[in-house]
Amino acid sequence: MLSFKYTYDKMNTIDYQEDDIIYALATPLAPSALAIIRISGAGCKKLLAPHFSKPSSLIKGKSHTLLHGKILSYSKKETIDEVLLSLFDDKRGYTGEESIEIACHGSLFGIEAIFTLLSQIGFRSAAPGEFTFRAFKHGRLDLTQAEAVMEIVDSHSQKAHSLALSRLEGDLFKRMDYLKKQTLQAMSSIEVQLDYAEDDFSDEVVFPSHIIREVKESLDSLIETYSVGKMYKEGALVVLAGSTNAGKSTLFNLLMKSERSIVSETHGTTRDFIEGHTVIGGIPITIFDTAGLRDSSDAVEMEGIKRSRYLLEKAHVIVLLVDADEAELQMSHHLNIIDDPRCITVYNKSDIALRAIPEGVIAISAKNGQGFGKLEEHILAKIKKDMPIIQTEALIIESKRQHDHLVSASSSLKSALEMGEKALPLDLIAVEVQEALSALGELTGEVTSFDILEQIFSGFCVGK
Amino acid sequence: MLSFKYTYDKMNTIDYQEDDIIYALATPLAPSALAIIRISGAGCKKLLAPHFSKPSSLIKGKSHTLLHGKILSYSKKETIDEVLLSLFDDKRGYTGEESIEIACHGSLFGIEAIFTLLSQIGFRSAAPGEFTFRAFKHGRLDLTQAEAVMEIVDSHSQKAHSLALSRLEGDLFKRMDYLKKQTLQAMSSIEVQLDYAEDDFSDEVVFPSHIIREVKESLDSLIETYSVGKMYKEGALVVLAGSTNAGKSTLFNLLMKSERSIVSETHGTTRDFIEGHTVIGGIPITIFDTAGLRDSSDAVEMEGIKRSRYLLEKAHVIVLLVDADEAELQMSHHLNIIDDPRCITVYNKSDIALRAIPEGVIAISAKNGQGFGKLEEHILAKIKKDMPIIQTEALIIESKRQHDHLVSASSSLKSALEMGEKALPLDLIAVEVQEALSALGELTGEVTSFDILEQIFSGFCVGK
Repeated sequence: MLSFKYTYDKMNTIDYQEDDIIYALATPLAPSALAIIRISGAGCKKLLAPHFSKPSSLIKGKSHTLLHGKILSYSKKETIDEVLLSLFDDKRGYTGEESIEIACHGSLFGIEAIFTLLSQIGFRSAAPGEFTFRAFKHGRLDLTQAEAVMEIVDSHSQKAHSLALSRLEGDLFKRMDYLKKQTLQAMSSIEVQLDYAEDDFSDEVVFPSHIIREVKESLDSLIETYSVGKMYKEGALVVLAGSTNAGKSTLFNLLMKSERSIVSETHGTTRDFIEGHTVIGGIPITIFDTAGLRDSSDAVEMEGIKRSRYLLEKAHVIVLLVDADEAELQMSHHLNIIDDPRCITVYNKSDIALRAIPEGVIAISAKNGQGFGKLEEHILAKIKKDMPIIQTEALIIESKRQHDHLVSASSSLKSALEMGEKALPLDLIAVEVQEALSALGELTGEVTSFDILEQIFSGFCVGK
Repeated sequence: MLSFKYTYDKMNTIDYQEDDIIYALATPLAPSALAIIRISGAGCKKLLAPHFSKPSSLIKGKSHTLLHGKILSYSKKETIDEVLLSLFDDKRGYTGEESIEIACHGSLFGIEAIFTLLSQIGFRSAAPGEFTFRAFKHGRLDLTQAEAVMEIVDSHSQKAHSLALSRLEGDLFKRMDYLKKQTLQAMSSIEVQLDYAEDDFSDEVVFPSHIIREVKESLDSLIETYSVGKMYKEGALVVLAGSTNAGKSTLFNLLMKSERSIVSETHGTTRDFIEGHTVIGGIPITIFDTAGLRDSSDAVEMEGIKRSRYLLEKAHVIVLLVDADEAELQMSHHLNIIDDPRCITVYNKSDIALRAIPEGVIAISAKNGQGFGKLEEHILAKIKKDMPIIQTEALIIESKRQHDHLVSASSSLKSALEMGEKALPLDLIAVEVQEALSALGELTGEVTSFDILEQIFSGFCVGK
């Protein structure tokens, strides 16, 4: 297993200089058929042209066309690689700037040589998220769409992918836009009355509580989706527990049978944990198979037990696997978890054991897969136990940032409603409604400060 | 560290059906900003169009243009991903067929969903090398260029990359073409005489030995480059030996200091080896740091020693590191390798030890890097010791297949020359010259059988 130490000249601090020409690898760094290097910034075609085999074709090249040719070294004496350039004019490509995508051979040394050239001609290695940041700054995406770009790449299940895609398509932005307009309408109705109030023209105050209430309810139902969205995004932790000879490894391998599974081994200082990734019901699942749950006086063993306990504590679901033939004995070793509401007790070797299965216990054969579907259903049910039921078509959020702004807006509107009920002065209520509007503005990025933007985008991958 | 078990519906046997529409991921499978899915085959635009948000733009789309839009699911009800399509007409793209490159988000689940769609609409998952195979079949590349494509992707140093690139640019093909024409000229001069001979018109036989000799010399100098090309391609094995406290790990880390280094740990059943990859003088170097060279009666330890011995046997260079303060004692433990011509003895801790350094021994400080440049020079010298000296600009081959055809052609021409010297009948000589021509034809792929072609291309990566 290779661990790439390959590093680019990364910037220590994120500093999005907006008029630089930036570049980054947009595809993973590994030998492959193709690699894509993104370049963005005004004047990039003209600066690259002298090092391209067809300089005038590059300069004259129209937006959204492909140009085949060779990238030449800084001295122009050697060919670095044979490439296909994708050209984008200002206001046309992903970033909304003049940009180029270089499709080169997926060779580590070819990529490195192109990077060297791009640095030599004055381009700068992009910071994480800098391409999407530019797309946001040029109005190609709002902040919820920009975040969706990262969520798509990071998605660990089909469901998470399609949820993020709907946000990229602007579903969340449109909803927010509508709710902001509603809130603004309420705000202007308040402001009109404040103007009249100053003239002492009328003292019959009308607080637009129906609009505010409607907006608040919409926000609350969106807030409610967060626990679901978070689960689709971050996934659930399932820990396999049980005695060493209960068949945990066989069950682990069964759970990993799906083509989508990823298995890795975590070598601790003291003992090894096997970690697997799969998807159940659209939810990405991390499964730990961990042995050391026995008490032990061995210091090395103790460390392993400490880590097992930590995993058990964090687990969404604990699958306690016991050999059906030795059920009582084995279960007596795990009394601490049997009554845990997260625990599913599973009798293994149902193919050979003819014992009666106690209620609430699932019988499976880790060997031939019998009862396995039922186990998956039970795992899913445990995970979803505390999650609200949400319509299939519903908009779902998964970003903590978005969630926090929604909560803040909803809470301001709640205060406004309460103040309205108490018939407090409209100018005090107006302050709360204004705060809700600010929170919604920050959510879509209209009123977000540069520092916060940098913080958001720096969580992206390089090349995005 | 993740180990992807992600698999596509791979074909068990390579079977290049030439009229299928094929697809494959051309970029590495890992979350990233972008991924490229290649599609090739007549009619692919028309078949994909109903599942693209702008069907008529896709069908009418001109070659070498980019088209932004959405890939829709098979039912056309959902958006699978937002993509950018690169369009290529018949005879214009990489394969020389109508083709499309889909640039999608680098999300594993988005890629999977697109793959599912492509299968549903009748496209076939490509076999390894199948795109390049089609490029070869449509005359876009000769066989030496096709092999260069793979060599570029697999290159482990800048030098190997640029050597392969020159072959892709057709340098080897042009040289072969010239030599074949020369050989054909000799052949026709022989054939003319054979015709006359049948008429018994003349018995003064003129064997074109000067041409044959010239061609043979050219072939031989190319054959000679193989050991060099192979070294640039496959690299050299350097094994660090020495007592455990000699500072091997520090030296290993020093050798791995280059940004290009890749470090991995091989966990054997019995003991661990640390393996590192770096580049010295353009040659990719694999360095093993292995401990167990002591005799031992422990069975587990024995296995480790066996593996160490195997590595020592295969090594191009053995670096024996000894602590300068305990040089005599430590060297006495490694008498078996000290006299090995591949061994470089290195005194470590030159910063603190003030001992006299024996002749032929290099002094370094693994701690502060002193003497390190000299060690690299010595390693390179040992590696290059048996390699022929080749001009910097020279064409270099690295493919065993190419080498073997060259050897076969040269050997036929050698026989022809010997037969000419003995004044054997021209029709016998003609057979040898014809065999040389066949070997050269196989080298460039003109006369290579389908089975052999499949064998060559199946060594490629998928998507290439």
